[in-house]
Amino acid sequence: MGIVVQNISRARAAVIDGLAAAGVATVHEAQGRRGCLASIMRPIWSGASIAGSAVTISAPPGDNWMLHVAIEQVQAGDILVLAPTSPCDNGYFGDLLATSAMARGCRGLVIDAGVRDIATLKEMGFPVWSKAISAQGTVKETLGSVNVPIVCAGQAIEAGDVIVADDDGVVVVKRGEAETVLAAAEKRLANEEAKRLRLKAGELGLDLYGMREALAAKGLKYV
Amino acid sequence: MGIVVQNISRARAAVIDGLAAAGVATVHEAQGRRGCLASIMRPIWSGASIAGSAVTISAPPGDNWMLHVAIEQVQAGDILVLAPTSPCDNGYFGDLLATSAMARGCRGLVIDAGVRDIATLKEMGFPVWSKAISAQGTVKETLGSVNVPIVCAGQAIEAGDVIVADDDGVVVVKRGEAETVLAAAEKRLANEEAKRLRLKAGELGLDLYGMREALAAKGLKYV
Amino acid sequence: MGIVVQNISRARAAVIDGLAAAGVATVHEAQGRRGCLASIMRPIWSGASIAGSAVTISAPPGDNWMLHVAIEQVQAGDILVLAPTSPCDNGYFGDLLATSAMARGCRGLVIDAGVRDIATLKEMGFPVWSKAISAQGTVKETLGSVNVPIVCAGQAIEAGDVIVADDDGVVVVKRGEAETVLAAAEKRLANEEAKRLRLKAGELGLDLYGMREALAAKGLKYV
Amino acid sequence: MGIVVQNISRARAAVIDGLAAAGVATVHEAQGRRGCLASIMRPIWSGASIAGSAVTISAPPGDNWMLHVAIEQVQAGDILVLAPTSPCDNGYFGDLLATSAMARGCRGLVIDAGVRDIATLKEMGFPVWSKAISAQGTVKETLGSVNVPIVCAGQAIEAGDVIVADDDGVVVVKRGEAETVLAAAEKRLANEEAKRLRLKAGELGLDLYGMREALAAKGLKYV
Amino acid sequence: MGIVVQNISRARAAVIDGLAAAGVATVHEAQGRRGCLASIMRPIWSGASIAGSAVTISAPPGDNWMLHVAIEQVQAGDILVLAPTSPCDNGYFGDLLATSAMARGCRGLVIDAGVRDIATLKEMGFPVWSKAISAQGTVKETLGSVNVPIVCAGQAIEAGDVIVADDDGVVVVKRGEAETVLAAAEKRLANEEAKRLRLKAGELGLDLYGMREALAAKGLKYV
Amino acid sequence: MGIVVQNISRARAAVIDGLAAAGVATVHEAQGRRGCLASIMRPIWSGASIAGSAVTISAPPGDNWMLHVAIEQVQAGDILVLAPTSPCDNGYFGDLLATSAMARGCRGLVIDAGVRDIATLKEMGFPVWSKAISAQGTVKETLGSVNVPIVCAGQAIEAGDVIVADDDGVVVVKRGEAETVLAAAEKRLANEEAKRLRLKAGELGLDLYGMREALAAKGLKYV
Repeated sequence: MGIVVQNISRARAAVIDGLAAAGVATVHEAQGRRGCLASIMRPIWSGASIAGSAVTISAPPGDNWMLHVAIEQVQAGDILVLAPTSPCDNGYFGDLLATSAMARGCRGLVIDAGVRDIATLKEMGFPVWSKAISAQGTVKETLGSVNVPIVCAGQAIEAGDVIVADDDGVVVVKRGEAETVLAAAEKRLANEEAKRLRLKAGELGLDLYGMREALAAKGLKYV
Repeated sequence: MGIVVQNISRARAAVIDGLAAAGVATVHEAQGRRGCLASIMRPIWSGASIAGSAVTISAPPGDNWMLHVAIEQVQAGDILVLAPTSPCDNGYFGDLLATSAMARGCRGLVIDAGVRDIATLKEMGFPVWSKAISAQGTVKETLGSVNVPIVCAGQAIEAGDVIVADDDGVVVVKRGEAETVLAAAEKRLANEEAKRLRLKAGELGLDLYGMREALAAKGLKYV
Repeated sequence: MGIVVQNISRARAAVIDGLAAAGVATVHEAQGRRGCLASIMRPIWSGASIAGSAVTISAPPGDNWMLHVAIEQVQAGDILVLAPTSPCDNGYFGDLLATSAMARGCRGLVIDAGVRDIATLKEMGFPVWSKAISAQGTVKETLGSVNVPIVCAGQAIEAGDVIVADDDGVVVVKRGEAETVLAAAEKRLANEEAKRLRLKAGELGLDLYGMREALAAKGLKYV
Repeated sequence: MGIVVQNISRARAAVIDGLAAAGVATVHEAQGRRGCLASIMRPIWSGASIAGSAVTISAPPGDNWMLHVAIEQVQAGDILVLAPTSPCDNGYFGDLLATSAMARGCRGLVIDAGVRDIATLKEMGFPVWSKAISAQGTVKETLGSVNVPIVCAGQAIEAGDVIVADDDGVVVVKRGEAETVLAAAEKRLANEEAKRLRLKAGELGLDLYGMREALAAKGLKYV
Repeated sequence: MGIVVQNISRARAAVIDGLAAAGVATVHEAQGRRGCLASIMRPIWSGASIAGSAVTISAPPGDNWMLHVAIEQVQAGDILVLAPTSPCDNGYFGDLLATSAMARGCRGLVIDAGVRDIATLKEMGFPVWSKAISAQGTVKETLGSVNVPIVCAGQAIEAGDVIVADDDGVVVVKRGEAETVLAAAEKRLANEEAKRLRLKAGELGLDLYGMREALAAKGLKYV
Repeated sequence: MGIVVQNISRARAAVIDGLAAAGVATVHEAQGRRGCLASIMRPIWSGASIAGSAVTISAPPGDNWMLHVAIEQVQAGDILVLAPTSPCDNGYFGDLLATSAMARGCRGLVIDAGVRDIATLKEMGFPVWSKAISAQGTVKETLGSVNVPIVCAGQAIEAGDVIVADDDGVVVVKRGEAETVLAAAEKRLANEEAKRLRLKAGELGLDLYGMREALAAKGLKYV
């Protein structure tokens, strides 16, 4: 505790943007069904779809001091990712912090805790994924750390990992795997369109994916 | 496990549509305050109001194979109803399955688990009531069953039962009781309008429903 | 149980309206980070922002009889606040009760239980903060009390206390402290605007709030 | 609601006792991994291991009147199974009801709600599986039903079904399947002993169950 | 925040001990089914049965400083009652604090948060009712208050109120009502013994309590 | 997925045993209040107090195949640590697996899911910390991985990290920090005994720890 790591590596901007375009569900599948944060993490307003490099924050319960420290470390295109050191639903973040973060080019916040001023955050277009919405405030008394490895909503995240977030939730891609995952995601998307058209035309998944034989082999019985 | 029942009975289309028009709260009251699924079951987008015949699915945790099997059993006007065999919040269903289901006339999905691609599902106008939104994908390895009796979010549901769902949640009506329940619901609705006007004019429920005497008899004291 | 207190004191209307304008997060901070109801209490539709005097209701689980009793006690500008005597997510309140409450000038409902007919309530513009949305109905068999002290979603509330509610949740202000809290809230708001402009211009919170020295004193290390 | 079914069929006593001896986990596997009640259902004291015929109770939240009605329907060897019509953790049952139930030969209680007087129940040797322990009392105002089909902790249960309960939780066996399930359970138990000895001697499950080939075929890689 | 009230009134020792002897369930009923803390509050070891005067603590999440302050205020026969200002499951209290509390005659701890060193606490015979067991430690940075009104696990508690706790949970009795409640509890206990004997002899509650007529009047049907 | 890492490094046996002796709460404090698994992780029987090297398992929901694979990797003194890839409360582990694990010298299981046969596990003296007890069985259809980094109950764990578990829960110590943490823990324990004696003699923590000045400086007021 009490550490701020100042120099972190980030994935290439084009890769990050490509992952944003692919979206959470596709990216998650493309990396082998890994990396989804717990489903309690919901957007405070719908329609945002972003990706960025994680600036990680480990903060004590009920203490948002490290958010101020972290914002200094934000570069344009980053996403703040906060995990409390024990479960907490306090509103760590509101419109003033969002104003400051946006001024530095921050694309959003992922927080395994609470957030407030959500009407204003929506007006500002600042997206947040959180486990709670709460006006309950916090203090500034105890140190945490910035850009150290954290566990946020069930996923291990390191500074510089790529965070992808949309209405389906949040997924993390290891920085070193971002290019490979993007390639897999784009391949997956290319395949999906053809499948969508065939399904729309009434073809069954059972036939499109050739499942009937495997189902019969497992013993499926039609009665 | 491993059974697909192919021929199921359904209620009459006019009855089903009547129940949709009555809505969940009224239908629930009309059948004696029974049949509501647990309140964790929420629509992924608001404003949908549907009814249809249940095509039931019992599926293992983290395995959506049976959804593909079930879609073949769907007739126009049906609603897919999935219960995992143990608690699971994975995203069993997304836009490709929705495309396929809509191509068969499916009116929606009720799932005691998770769903994904919700931005696309909303665009498509495909309604889902679920306990979670999650991008976490599933496998296709283990059989479940289709059109067998299930328990979904606390209610026993059989294939062909009528499912009614709107912003208030989901209620199930036993197929054999659908006509009687509709009649009771319509009677209830007819009464409500008159009450609404009197309440709007300032009359108190205490007087409208004649509650004062019963309250006094129970011992209510005004101080 | 079984008591209805008829004469309650209320804060001045101008004070109540001032608290509504300040909003939940600011009011909560202004009174020393106290008074927030649990974060499970969410609005059934977003955008409402109200304040009013609490008409409190203690009701048995699954029994909404006391809501009818309470509405008679409502004056224009009041907010109904219901706490069940044990945890319950039933839909105690729907469009007919809302019609009646609105006819008496009621500004909204705060309920540590469920509510239904939410599509209609939204159309009517009647705001509700609840822990659940549920069509499950209730009976009218057992007495509760009106305008007695209750605990609602973790906060002790007395009749006549000021309730402030918006998209961030709900906060209670003791009636006797309402003027003092409003003054503190307005002072806080006045300060915030200047801070917002400086943060928007890129100044860091670390500098604006002069935090660097205190952080260093606690031992924060930049690496 | 408001129905008491007086004549119910039960499985043979020897079959029921055989299922008790097999235990919950084995019975659950023997019937194809079906029938387990949700894992929130825990014994109030450990070491009890019972089976019996279900006398089912559907009761309103916070109202235990039907327990008194149900006890009259109990025969020696029965188990009371109560499901509230909406979620409730009240203490529906305590030592007086247990005294009455034991006087009729009741073997235990399974309740998707709360129970109290647990120190006394333990002294009396009356076993209960519940989702909560709570001193919160209930009223006797509203009817429920006895020996109708219910859903308890996620499982559909009919009067006369066999309930098996031990430290692992609770499983229900359909009355008509009890003999078949017992046969399968006993076969399973017979096989287990030999396996246990081989595993104890250090043989690996990988070899005992011949899993290596299937794992390799799925692509498992040792590195 | 930041207040320590030093002089509090307590109920008479004999009354407190009488309430302990009556037990939680009986006391709760005797005061009109009020005062039970939420059922999440469980003893860390079973068999303790105590009553005492509440020394209340309002503490920030993750900060146990005020426990040290509170122990100075403890008199022999008191019970510490801690409510965090927002939900927290940290282990605020362990064997050293228990040693100190016992040295002052403290009878136990009720805490809507976590506790640790539970094996040692059991050895020491120091009883705790908590919502969690957690080794997660706390800091000493932020003030709270001692002997101010709090809400703990859903109940409003003032310093000097009587806390009764046993295996069924925790109930609070208002200091000013303690004598009346004890009288009602003792009357209730006296009645129970006779009922227990009759029920044990096989008499039904339906007859003992004369319920048959009321059930029939409500419409109960035997089929 | 589908990877088994065969060679892992472990901390020295004496260090591991030293950490077991120190216990979870002390180890957690000694490493700077880090490493506690979530408080939902509870022992299935009380009194066990162990430490060992983690053999990690990432397993699909409802599929325990990898447990068989992992047991082959166990050396005497290891602890199995399983995290499902999405939330699951199934009973992945029972007495046969425990028999096999014990035969290899396994000291216990930490599982962010369910376990069964708990009466037998207790008889065998095999300790388990889990989030659930459930008889619900699992399949053997889908690969996971062994000895890869996992997140279990909120903590990142690598194969070979030291797991310490007792009645207070579970803490993980990074393998490379084990010696340092042990030294800090032992120092802490040495200090505790002296404090305990002084507290037992009636000295207040306020004086023993010299807190009065700091409290006054923060503004604590005695009234």
